Amino acid sequence: MDKKLIGVDLGGTTIKFAILTPAGEIQQRWSVDTNILDEGSHIVPDIITSINHHLDLFEMTPDQFIGIGMGTPGTVDIQKGTVIGAYNLNWKTLQPVKAQIEAGTGIQFAIDNDANVAALGERWQGAGENDDDVILVPLGTGIGGGIIANGQLLHGLAGAAGEIGHVTVDPNGYQCTCGKKGCLETIASATGVVRVARDMAEEYAGDSALKRQLDDGEEISSKIVFDLAKANDPLALNVVERVSYFLGLALGNLGNTLNPAYIVIGGGVSAAGDFLLTRVQKYFNEYTFPQVRNSTKLRLAVLGNDAGVIGAASLAKQFA
Amino acid sequence: MDKKLIGVDLGGTTIKFAILTPAGEIQQRWSVDTNILDEGSHIVPDIITSINHHLDLFEMTPDQFIGIGMGTPGTVDIQKGTVIGAYNLNWKTLQPVKAQIEAGTGIQFAIDNDANVAALGERWQGAGENDDDVILVPLGTGIGGGIIANGQLLHGLAGAAGEIGHVTVDPNGYQCTCGKKGCLETIASATGVVRVARDMAEEYAGDSALKRQLDDGEEISSKIVFDLAKANDPLALNVVERVSYFLGLALGNLGNTLNPAYIVIGGGVSAAGDFLLTRVQKYFNEYTFPQVRNSTKLRLAVLGNDAGVIGAASLAKQFA
Repeated sequence: MDKKLIGVDLGGTTIKFAILTPAGEIQQRWSVDTNILDEGSHIVPDIITSINHHLDLFEMTPDQFIGIGMGTPGTVDIQKGTVIGAYNLNWKTLQPVKAQIEAGTGIQFAIDNDANVAALGERWQGAGENDDDVILVPLGTGIGGGIIANGQLLHGLAGAAGEIGHVTVDPNGYQCTCGKKGCLETIASATGVVRVARDMAEEYAGDSALKRQLDDGEEISSKIVFDLAKANDPLALNVVERVSYFLGLALGNLGNTLNPAYIVIGGGVSAAGDFLLTRVQKYFNEYTFPQVRNSTKLRLAVLGNDAGVIGAASLAKQFA
Repeated sequence: MDKKLIGVDLGGTTIKFAILTPAGEIQQRWSVDTNILDEGSHIVPDIITSINHHLDLFEMTPDQFIGIGMGTPGTVDIQKGTVIGAYNLNWKTLQPVKAQIEAGTGIQFAIDNDANVAALGERWQGAGENDDDVILVPLGTGIGGGIIANGQLLHGLAGAAGEIGHVTVDPNGYQCTCGKKGCLETIASATGVVRVARDMAEEYAGDSALKRQLDDGEEISSKIVFDLAKANDPLALNVVERVSYFLGLALGNLGNTLNPAYIVIGGGVSAAGDFLLTRVQKYFNEYTFPQVRNSTKLRLAVLGNDAGVIGAASLAKQFA
């Protein structure tokens, strides 16, 4: 019988687990709540206990596994297998995750940050068609990103490669939490879309349900903005156009720089689907030069929440 | 005795050759004129003849070499070792360069495009300190570029990775030869600097030697613009500031995307030296987020014309 892979997707709320075949098929999956109490000191023991418990349950042994891969928030030393500064886990000090999990399970372990791991997942089993050159741009509360080039994740000197959310698209634009102005994240993340909507509503004089909701102080979300745009609300359409312009410009320049096979748009905002994709594609075409326009393809992510465990499991293929 | 490397830098005017040690030291160098007559059909035979002649001259034999590496204009298939569309060589049809040179010299051969090869050179023996993550941005008549990440050149799907000159920095800017607007090349190449100078001179009302030269119809160059700026010509200073702004923005976004150890500025425009570098650094700092600002370093290229033969030779290290 082929040996299996284990993928672990560690988040601030939930830890997701899956057992996969080497071909990437999920055979088992489960999850546990993340216990961030006591400076997150329960997290790694909980992961070990949960893996060992499920191996017992499935009547499997460590030697039946190629390895465990994990995606995590925070700053990862992939060689040493340590994590620091994962604030939503309360991990402020250095966590020797690899050493602990290998000792606790008897299975080899590899780790990378969650954005990179999600990119590996979409590349392997999702929209990336297992190509050697794939970029994932997840539009969530913020915008992360993972770049795979020549078949390898890029990390850069300080682990900051792939931070596409902090590409400057509007030099005189909104202030970003990172300290500079006009980051893509300030416009095209879920919070960015709402920011653009509030900003454009102030100057909008026509009739718009979106403007009424904002003026009435209702809570709005990027989903509400896109839903109203799909229903032809004129202000919402303007907001989506503006977001798509900056996203198309940023993704176009990613294409001009790296010429990947696929740039995959993921995260919550990508739920807007083809309505978003066609608009971003228009600006992408405008801001890419012909060789890139005719080769690099924009796509929507297809794995949803599974990208994490699948990409994490793919990290463990190195032990095969 | 250690085996040697041969580097060949094929240009539209000259073919440069060098024999290097595996450590990158140039031991011999020579060059021949490029004969582009008869659809460039003399070029490869001339290269073979010149290499064989010099091996005789130095009393060396093919088995004393690890391999030959070459940088070329045009579109390169690095696996097959073929070149097409090198218009300044009159190579319009597919050229089986690798097959011909290996047959003609008895030495293994590797090839890549000239921008990538120059990046390998600056990385190996120049400003790149042999780091695994280095980007070269040569500011010449146009702007090319080569990206080394995880120690490997990036080519992208259609070989267009590293085309930093076609990053859109000014969406409503100048028309580029590639068909789109506002490419970095339209502003920060040697011709771009002159374009910006002409454009800004039209609206400039003060006293300026640069404006007088332009109004008098004198030929100007990027060197003249920088020399006048260094002499405190107010219009020339404005031009340099504007060029530096767009260059800092583009290089900043390269940093935000890839977080390399070094971004190396080369080409003729980089002869302006620290006068240019300090201004570009100011905008680079403004448009990078802290992790990148504090790790990625901007530098001037140091190898000049030698980057080509040195980088070409490094391609042949794969045969060691």
